[in-house]
Amino acid sequence: MGLLVVGSVAYDAIETPFAKTEKALGGSAMFFSAAAGYFAPVHLVGVVGNDFDFDELAFLRKNNIDFEGLTIENGETFRWAGRYLNNMIDRETIYTHLGVFESFNPLLPEKYKENEFIFLANIHPSLQYSVLQQIHRPTFIAMDTMNFWITGALEDLKKTLQHVDALIINDSEVRLLSQEHNLFTGARKIQSMGPQVLIIKKGEHGAILIQGDSYFACPALPIENLFDPTGAGDTFAGGFMGYLAECGSVNETNLRRAVAMGAVMASFCVERFSAERLKNLTIEEIRQRAAQLLRMIQVEGDDHWLHL
Amino acid sequence: MGLLVVGSVAYDAIETPFAKTEKALGGSAMFFSAAAGYFAPVHLVGVVGNDFDFDELAFLRKNNIDFEGLTIENGETFRWAGRYLNNMIDRETIYTHLGVFESFNPLLPEKYKENEFIFLANIHPSLQYSVLQQIHRPTFIAMDTMNFWITGALEDLKKTLQHVDALIINDSEVRLLSQEHNLFTGARKIQSMGPQVLIIKKGEHGAILIQGDSYFACPALPIENLFDPTGAGDTFAGGFMGYLAECGSVNETNLRRAVAMGAVMASFCVERFSAERLKNLTIEEIRQRAAQLLRMIQVEGDDHWLHL
Repeated sequence: MGLLVVGSVAYDAIETPFAKTEKALGGSAMFFSAAAGYFAPVHLVGVVGNDFDFDELAFLRKNNIDFEGLTIENGETFRWAGRYLNNMIDRETIYTHLGVFESFNPLLPEKYKENEFIFLANIHPSLQYSVLQQIHRPTFIAMDTMNFWITGALEDLKKTLQHVDALIINDSEVRLLSQEHNLFTGARKIQSMGPQVLIIKKGEHGAILIQGDSYFACPALPIENLFDPTGAGDTFAGGFMGYLAECGSVNETNLRRAVAMGAVMASFCVERFSAERLKNLTIEEIRQRAAQLLRMIQVEGDDHWLHL
Repeated sequence: MGLLVVGSVAYDAIETPFAKTEKALGGSAMFFSAAAGYFAPVHLVGVVGNDFDFDELAFLRKNNIDFEGLTIENGETFRWAGRYLNNMIDRETIYTHLGVFESFNPLLPEKYKENEFIFLANIHPSLQYSVLQQIHRPTFIAMDTMNFWITGALEDLKKTLQHVDALIINDSEVRLLSQEHNLFTGARKIQSMGPQVLIIKKGEHGAILIQGDSYFACPALPIENLFDPTGAGDTFAGGFMGYLAECGSVNETNLRRAVAMGAVMASFCVERFSAERLKNLTIEEIRQRAAQLLRMIQVEGDDHWLHL
């Protein structure tokens, strides 16, 4: 089924202890689409400046992504520059130039309004809300957010949260939004704000899916050659939503499998700069890594394993 | 099959943001036994001072624990006092009085030498080695260690590591011992030092079992009422080794189930001070929590779940 993503398409400048790139394709909607396109047709809404080179998106067009909703405005494309510290997790922002993204006002092309799976990437919660007012009868809406909106636009965020099915955020954001140190207490508090499904990303420690009062702990794949973590979260969301859209329906089994697929796609993302590793994956590569992940949580636990 | 543990029996003074105890039964061998006793007969080797009240161990005697190997020396029992910070993970030591533990020299009663499952709790690696020289034909030897020995007795530690099957340590200790930031690279380096089985404890993020080149990611149970984390690691080791000793043989399935049982027993430990919560568990309580944990990692993943 159709999948809509609203978010950024950007240029990143990234420095890690091992490598450096001056201008790599980035942005939440780009990473999301690069992953989701393996599973379902994606409709992308975003904005770029007239400095943007559309040839760089050729791999997306090839891969099921419709970007009629990616508008071009006079001005510069969103640019972000960051530097990762030695642990490859903590990073410092060198600059953020919003460019045309500063006045981004997502307007959905008519045909986009029928999408049944919706992902609102990390943008101002009032813009996320404006998207919800444009879509018709969605099956499943998921959103991302960040500390900047939690502290700076909390009322708008709470309003948007009331209308979504799922929130995908990291553990520190759960604590900030819920004002609870305990992750599980915090999660229940956030569920009471609206989203019944919560996916808590914990980086190298994997992710936790909370649906109602059921928990699924999904590990991260073991990565020995972590190259650049940029975009891993949006790639995770792309694998997750893409898989769900392909299933066409949402139930506990599909949600768990979708989280696993998010982890699989994220594990590719971090092996190269930008979406390089996501450009030409084979079905067999995805399949192998999914099998590897399932093997990591497999316990042959029949009723008799506890021989007490 | 018989299970031997060599470690400490102590008195702890603990302060958390919520509660305080002046004198609670503690020590690695005590926590280990309290958990392992649910699964297999345990033989405990340790030392206490003549201030020690053996009545406090009545619950262990009732529960399969033989402590003929717990000797009494003139002097004071090992005492540790610590304070947990607000996150309930970081802690500061207020004092450590080794007492009679300072000159601990583990001597195994004759009948203990036939044990087939051996756990060397966190003591000086040369003492751990001396235990290995006394035992006859063990099936499976696991050990713990800590940063203090990694930095202060590295050569002794490396010598002991050559003779054990499994090392149970936390993630920061993996990094310190291997001098590798990447956990998985570090793990392989430690495997090359001897132990083919590595269990990396990550607190609230669960544990990773590495056996050869196979990984098992075991989550921690969701704990909303974390009361006192003291002893959780030794309790984990007790559940793990107890379960293996009950199985009587070591293979990948048993190892995975044993790690899950370690996580189950640790989840009880942290709900009260000392081993209070481990004293009177019912089989049904253990069974329920094991089922809950398995449910947390269950994906209905047949060959067709990846419909790509």
